[in-house]
Amino acid sequence: MRKWIVMMTDFGPDNTGTATMRGVAASVDSELQLTDLTNSIEPFNVWQASDALMYTEPFWPAGTVFVSVVDPGVGTSRRACVAKLRDGKYVVTPDNGTLTHLASRVGIEAVREIDETVNRLHGTEKTSVFHGRDLFAYTAARLAAGIIDFEGVGPAYPVEEIVRCDKPLSAEVCGGNLTGRVTSVSRYLGNLFTNIRAEDMEDNGFVTGERYRVILTGLSTGRTVFDQEVSYAVSFGHVEQGQALIFNGSTLYLCVALNQDSFARKYQIDPAEEWRIEVKKHE
Amino acid sequence: MRKWIVMMTDFGPDNTGTATMRGVAASVDSELQLTDLTNSIEPFNVWQASDALMYTEPFWPAGTVFVSVVDPGVGTSRRACVAKLRDGKYVVTPDNGTLTHLASRVGIEAVREIDETVNRLHGTEKTSVFHGRDLFAYTAARLAAGIIDFEGVGPAYPVEEIVRCDKPLSAEVCGGNLTGRVTSVSRYLGNLFTNIRAEDMEDNGFVTGERYRVILTGLSTGRTVFDQEVSYAVSFGHVEQGQALIFNGSTLYLCVALNQDSFARKYQIDPAEEWRIEVKKHE
Amino acid sequence: MRKWIVMMTDFGPDNTGTATMRGVAASVDSELQLTDLTNSIEPFNVWQASDALMYTEPFWPAGTVFVSVVDPGVGTSRRACVAKLRDGKYVVTPDNGTLTHLASRVGIEAVREIDETVNRLHGTEKTSVFHGRDLFAYTAARLAAGIIDFEGVGPAYPVEEIVRCDKPLSAEVCGGNLTGRVTSVSRYLGNLFTNIRAEDMEDNGFVTGERYRVILTGLSTGRTVFDQEVSYAVSFGHVEQGQALIFNGSTLYLCVALNQDSFARKYQIDPAEEWRIEVKKHE
Repeated sequence: MRKWIVMMTDFGPDNTGTATMRGVAASVDSELQLTDLTNSIEPFNVWQASDALMYTEPFWPAGTVFVSVVDPGVGTSRRACVAKLRDGKYVVTPDNGTLTHLASRVGIEAVREIDETVNRLHGTEKTSVFHGRDLFAYTAARLAAGIIDFEGVGPAYPVEEIVRCDKPLSAEVCGGNLTGRVTSVSRYLGNLFTNIRAEDMEDNGFVTGERYRVILTGLSTGRTVFDQEVSYAVSFGHVEQGQALIFNGSTLYLCVALNQDSFARKYQIDPAEEWRIEVKKHE
Repeated sequence: MRKWIVMMTDFGPDNTGTATMRGVAASVDSELQLTDLTNSIEPFNVWQASDALMYTEPFWPAGTVFVSVVDPGVGTSRRACVAKLRDGKYVVTPDNGTLTHLASRVGIEAVREIDETVNRLHGTEKTSVFHGRDLFAYTAARLAAGIIDFEGVGPAYPVEEIVRCDKPLSAEVCGGNLTGRVTSVSRYLGNLFTNIRAEDMEDNGFVTGERYRVILTGLSTGRTVFDQEVSYAVSFGHVEQGQALIFNGSTLYLCVALNQDSFARKYQIDPAEEWRIEVKKHE
Repeated sequence: MRKWIVMMTDFGPDNTGTATMRGVAASVDSELQLTDLTNSIEPFNVWQASDALMYTEPFWPAGTVFVSVVDPGVGTSRRACVAKLRDGKYVVTPDNGTLTHLASRVGIEAVREIDETVNRLHGTEKTSVFHGRDLFAYTAARLAAGIIDFEGVGPAYPVEEIVRCDKPLSAEVCGGNLTGRVTSVSRYLGNLFTNIRAEDMEDNGFVTGERYRVILTGLSTGRTVFDQEVSYAVSFGHVEQGQALIFNGSTLYLCVALNQDSFARKYQIDPAEEWRIEVKKHE
């Protein structure tokens, strides 16, 4: 069975830096399977990186090694670590909040700090700005190739010490209605992803095929940009072209979209803003 | 011989959704070779998807499995299918027009509807919006890995029932002159691709090295944005920098370009518009 | 040991042309490992292509075959070649200046012109615009797969005949101060890369932790857009958020950046302009 390394960065699409990371991994073991999760994480946005890992991780096989390089603190004292997830996968990352979602949703079995004296690419000691290449890709490849085992990463430290972002992961229930957050916006198609689970919808009596009131409000401005009754549909094709809908997204979180148009563009949902979403039944 | 899966979507470049599709395939068989055709198909543009498959497919080896996820009707009654091409390759796609070009140019030997009771990723039954991941990538990987054979996809249906887009695939000849359509515009380099074949040029007495009149007109506006004599050149370097040319493109269709500049930008060729191209000899 | 082919083009991110090049290579040998260096080289910018190869090449294993398709002269008399580097890697490219940096920094052991009668994909003789696919990807795959050896590429010619770009590769030292050029600008993060080596800094008494005067001037306009004392820091995290810094970049060339912001955006560093950088000690 060949092992996969899945890389994520905030270096931008199609960048040459990630190509050097792939080179380092291929130099460790040319048989490894290498691919990217995405390189389009908003620069320095650790929360988005954490969310993207949670979205993608479940679909990869046990043994997969993820590498995350969203690392505003590179070269400072933040820990460089490898987390072993409860489902048998690994994440190589700066310990800076990137593990927040996976720690809550999948669970982390153990975490180790990368020992630079062993797991650093030779000849890179004079630069301190690209741990993604010199430490993370190199360690990930050695782990995936079986050159080191998890113990070989470096000293263990308590899972409780892992840095977590301080933001609400789940939606709130109030009087049978739900209040959550927009977690990401797909740049290209313009759909919104939220932290309201399909399960929360079901448990609180929301039924597909019915219509509910959806309210979107920017937290910093207090401005409500959308307040309409929309269909809670099974999928896009169940509403008219151009109509808004909510639906259980592909990872079983509630999404907001237009059928064959961009919701984000039409309602000017700036991804840099923090958005509250309320889903309400008829009063 | 290792098998390749080649994925195409309209999810946008460098998106995380395609990364989950790759994960599903790698989970089925970690030895598979995975790559993308493109993720930059204009959202919901089935015709462009069909054209991109035709452009790329000939260069891949027999046994390759293409996955196309341009799927505005996901979750409705449109068929999810696998087409077996006459040259021994496969396309996993919603049956929504995506097979139009391949059906005409390569030929489809047989088509089967995906049996969801067998070929659906377990645990995804509660979402209906991401067949690309839950049905298509999963079925493609099982087929490429030899876990199922083509019969194992699901029930066959007549090739004649495959949905085709109703647009002209070929250019028209009139009095020795040619009238065709712009089929795509390369966003980055700004070249135009047309449906006029190199063969049509040759058969109608057009000869490289000569100059011909080229007219480009938007169909919805009736506005002609280009009407000039240009060189029918062997390649870019045969005209001056900045000069327009026509040439036999890399798939033997006629292309329009500027040498070392963007034709689309200079003449404001909006890819959303339908463009007619006329190529005429001296009167 | 499986061989890697690493492709670079100016076709734009996520384009379908590169997908056909991958198809050609997979058709030659489906076991090959294929990836991209980048497809975002500025159209026709041979100098940038040469620089990107130098930046990436050191991290790949011996035996890797690079394919570069930045080829404004395709179809003219420029040579199509394969260069064998002193460190055991290969570059398949038009001989148009793309080898400039590697020739100086790594060294070229030998170079051979591709013999089209042997190393051209069959059936592509009627088009002359896509050597990247029909000649370069095909030859690279045959070489990587061991179907041909280096001699099988075609006739050798003198390394001295390799076309080189006529631009300064190194910084100048004057009175202990350094004057160099900006070699590239990262579009996404907005950092500047220069041709001043970490070694030049050290040899001339520049010490990390100190502050130095940095001046950036556009060569065509003569306009100075930045003239400030900044920290020569070990990495981003050693200066305040939003502050400018210089640092030894990941390939040991001096870089200019803002901590967690885009230097290029803030100071309007147009990548199309040629920029001089001066680094000076206190007078």
